[in-house]
Amino acid sequence: MQLKMTLDELNAFMNEQFPQVSDDFEVLDVAPMHATIRLNVDDKHLRPGGTVSGPTMFALADVSVYLATLAMIGPKALAVTTNISMDFMRKPTSGANLRSETRLLKLGKVLAVGDVLIFSEGDDRPVARASMTYSIPPGQ
Amino acid sequence: MQLKMTLDELNAFMNEQFPQVSDDFEVLDVAPMHATIRLNVDDKHLRPGGTVSGPTMFALADVSVYLATLAMIGPKALAVTTNISMDFMRKPTSGANLRSETRLLKLGKVLAVGDVLIFSEGDDRPVARASMTYSIPPGQ
Amino acid sequence: MQLKMTLDELNAFMNEQFPQVSDDFEVLDVAPMHATIRLNVDDKHLRPGGTVSGPTMFALADVSVYLATLAMIGPKALAVTTNISMDFMRKPTSGANLRSETRLLKLGKVLAVGDVLIFSEGDDRPVARASMTYSIPPGQ
Amino acid sequence: MQLKMTLDELNAFMNEQFPQVSDDFEVLDVAPMHATIRLNVDDKHLRPGGTVSGPTMFALADVSVYLATLAMIGPKALAVTTNISMDFMRKPTSGANLRSETRLLKLGKVLAVGDVLIFSEGDDRPVARASMTYSIPPGQ
Repeated sequence: MQLKMTLDELNAFMNEQFPQVSDDFEVLDVAPMHATIRLNVDDKHLRPGGTVSGPTMFALADVSVYLATLAMIGPKALAVTTNISMDFMRKPTSGANLRSETRLLKLGKVLAVGDVLIFSEGDDRPVARASMTYSIPPGQ
Repeated sequence: MQLKMTLDELNAFMNEQFPQVSDDFEVLDVAPMHATIRLNVDDKHLRPGGTVSGPTMFALADVSVYLATLAMIGPKALAVTTNISMDFMRKPTSGANLRSETRLLKLGKVLAVGDVLIFSEGDDRPVARASMTYSIPPGQ
Repeated sequence: MQLKMTLDELNAFMNEQFPQVSDDFEVLDVAPMHATIRLNVDDKHLRPGGTVSGPTMFALADVSVYLATLAMIGPKALAVTTNISMDFMRKPTSGANLRSETRLLKLGKVLAVGDVLIFSEGDDRPVARASMTYSIPPGQ
Repeated sequence: MQLKMTLDELNAFMNEQFPQVSDDFEVLDVAPMHATIRLNVDDKHLRPGGTVSGPTMFALADVSVYLATLAMIGPKALAVTTNISMDFMRKPTSGANLRSETRLLKLGKVLAVGDVLIFSEGDDRPVARASMTYSIPPGQ
């Protein structure tokens, strides 16, 4: 299986399509069925106490599987999240950016399934785990 | 089972503890093991195309089970989300607020489990479904 | 929305298609987007200690959403489970049959989503909760 | 982190505690926070059509995380499954045994979280993915 989008194309696509969040996310690495994405943590992502909020980790997982899928099927797709399951396992490190490691487990005609581990940069124990299903519209 | 917090106490607690999001959420109704909460949809909650974003629905589900749990155990708790599963079933109606209907299915000493249906106001077909587990710290 | 299969037709369908487990399950009630199903608990369903095993509760949830879906789309379908999430909340009562209450939350052309509460007969606190997604093959 | 049970001890533990299913499962490999387990597929595991049933894959995932956890905390534990999420991604190969690859992502005092990929032997594309949470009783 081959990539249909490069690292630069993925970052450019995100800047164009999601300008309001594109400063938050940066694709660090992409390979067939894999992607590594950083979330630049900012005050707006924090809960009282200084750790990254649940919705922010959800957003990182969602973007990560979405971009890993687009890297394989190309930028025209309008995949829609249909299911997510997440486990929150540790408090993210205060002040550290987050990094997601995504692998696509299935890339079918109708459904794509990926899983994600989320880390605080500088710590190799995952803070959260997610698995997500995307529905891929026909005729793309 | 009896409520330990009234509707007004829940809304006041949210304003105090989460001032940055308390304008977004309003507890409309609370009963033993149940809560109804409105999300006042705003530009910041929208995706391109005008529908409410996934992370926003996640945040609504998370707040809903959290507040339904606090209503039963009182405001001192520091419950932590450990697991969530969500199904996104329909596009939310553009321009409509969201309403969540939450029921607690288990309220143990260590874990609370709740499920949530999310609706666009004015439509009785759910746009999303969530189930969540909260870990309740000992000694509370 | 209208039923395409009656209670008797659902039970007959199960006997014909799944003879090896049809003694285990009995559809007690069916209505548009709802079904109530009993699991007749037997030694083979038990874990050491006498409570119903996890795989047995999984099977009950799976059958329940499947039959609730067939009731709406008719007996020719070959729907396939694509996702399940379950919370196990209480030990089932030793010696009691299980009863599932299923509601379909979405019945689309491609995906059906349902959720299930499982009870030990004689106790109104749920022992488990499940949500499931079925993929409906095209052209049915 | 160190193992508290060897491969042989895990297999012996399973034979003793779960005699009714111990022929089905065999621990092939164990390492800190990892385990590889085989399901010897038999007629009783099959659905009409000859593929392994959902409840059977559930049972494999459940046993896998359970044994990976016991390997780390020792055989006295009575861990209880509290949550599972599974994605079924491909039909298992007809006639092939299944193999699970499990990694523990968190081993806390109260909760353990693991994820599992399930393969048909001879094919490196996962047929299913699971993540599971176990509650570890206090005082163990």
